[in-house]
Amino acid sequence: MKSSTVTIPNAVIHRLPRYYRYLRDIMDEGVERISSIDLSKRMGVTASQVRQDLNHFGDFGQQGYGYNVAYLREEIAKILGLSESHPVIIFGAGHLGTAIANHSNFPRRGFEILTLFDNDPKVIGTTINGMLVRDENELESFLAENKVEIAILALPKAVTQSVADRLISLGVRYFLNFAPVDLRYDDPSIIVESVHISDSMMTLSYRIAKSQEEKKG
Amino acid sequence: MKSSTVTIPNAVIHRLPRYYRYLRDIMDEGVERISSIDLSKRMGVTASQVRQDLNHFGDFGQQGYGYNVAYLREEIAKILGLSESHPVIIFGAGHLGTAIANHSNFPRRGFEILTLFDNDPKVIGTTINGMLVRDENELESFLAENKVEIAILALPKAVTQSVADRLISLGVRYFLNFAPVDLRYDDPSIIVESVHISDSMMTLSYRIAKSQEEKKG
Repeated sequence: MKSSTVTIPNAVIHRLPRYYRYLRDIMDEGVERISSIDLSKRMGVTASQVRQDLNHFGDFGQQGYGYNVAYLREEIAKILGLSESHPVIIFGAGHLGTAIANHSNFPRRGFEILTLFDNDPKVIGTTINGMLVRDENELESFLAENKVEIAILALPKAVTQSVADRLISLGVRYFLNFAPVDLRYDDPSIIVESVHISDSMMTLSYRIAKSQEEKKG
Repeated sequence: MKSSTVTIPNAVIHRLPRYYRYLRDIMDEGVERISSIDLSKRMGVTASQVRQDLNHFGDFGQQGYGYNVAYLREEIAKILGLSESHPVIIFGAGHLGTAIANHSNFPRRGFEILTLFDNDPKVIGTTINGMLVRDENELESFLAENKVEIAILALPKAVTQSVADRLISLGVRYFLNFAPVDLRYDDPSIIVESVHISDSMMTLSYRIAKSQEEKKG
């Protein structure tokens, strides 16, 4: 492994989960070694991009031999921190929160969902995928008794910022946010990743408009 | 407007929906004009990035005057193709599909959800946010009678590729995919945007690992 002080470009970091996904599939097929050319073909990128990307993290391949799939996948898992266990809560037990709670990939990547919180009496006390939905008024007492690293925010836009502020005041530092709002904090120890569904829909719309414009010439 | 043949960098395109979101909020506050400096402060980027990004699409600002918020928002809406109406179907009426069908922003941005499809007898025939869930066996007849541009795929990974292939064979060309699989087609008229929830979770995990490593020195 290279020194951790080297800054990895953001674009590379955002591609790493994709490498992880492909290597998992390749492993499931029973493939043990793969060349950068074959890996790049599967992923629809150039072989030199694969080599450049992976070189940021160390020397995984052997000349003329290719990559050991299991080893590379394990190393990427380590880089991604997937070998660590992360206790998670989901705030918002509506359809989106429920969909996330049912996400089968989370537990086996170290994301251990402890519970969900909501303010709707209809869902409080029910279980989703074996996990209890608690009254959001119990948040303080729950966090006093349980270590929570990550909060997944599956909430309406209007309340997301205030819930995030409340969680931060209670010591939660890491967030996956689904509301169409950017949570920004000056404290560098607070980390927010966002999934903006409507932004993706707008990007699709842009690409459609562009493609139709090109067709018209 | 500059010539449409100019290639806009992907990074800029992915930032456009964000500009649109901010300008909508700024408009809702009743602000009529904004300088690139004020806009950049709100968005947490540099003023020169704002100017550079927007310059790709034309000359929206006036020196010493700033941007007309309503005009800029309208122009970005046009660039994003949001002034066009896009008929949409959702494939998969589970929790994720239901959450998307309830997404309040879609209709007012021109994404007109016509119906949902599923294969579960328990949900077929029910309505979600006023929209009927149809039997997926009715897909062919529905598409023969209705113009559909975009299919949102809210399906398990294992079936996503085959459903996408089937939709393409029926003439659907544009997709928003939520499954952790990359849909790739050689036909450039087929456009896929993906929302990979677990990739975002892994990126968050990476940033957490990196931040903890730095803290340890």
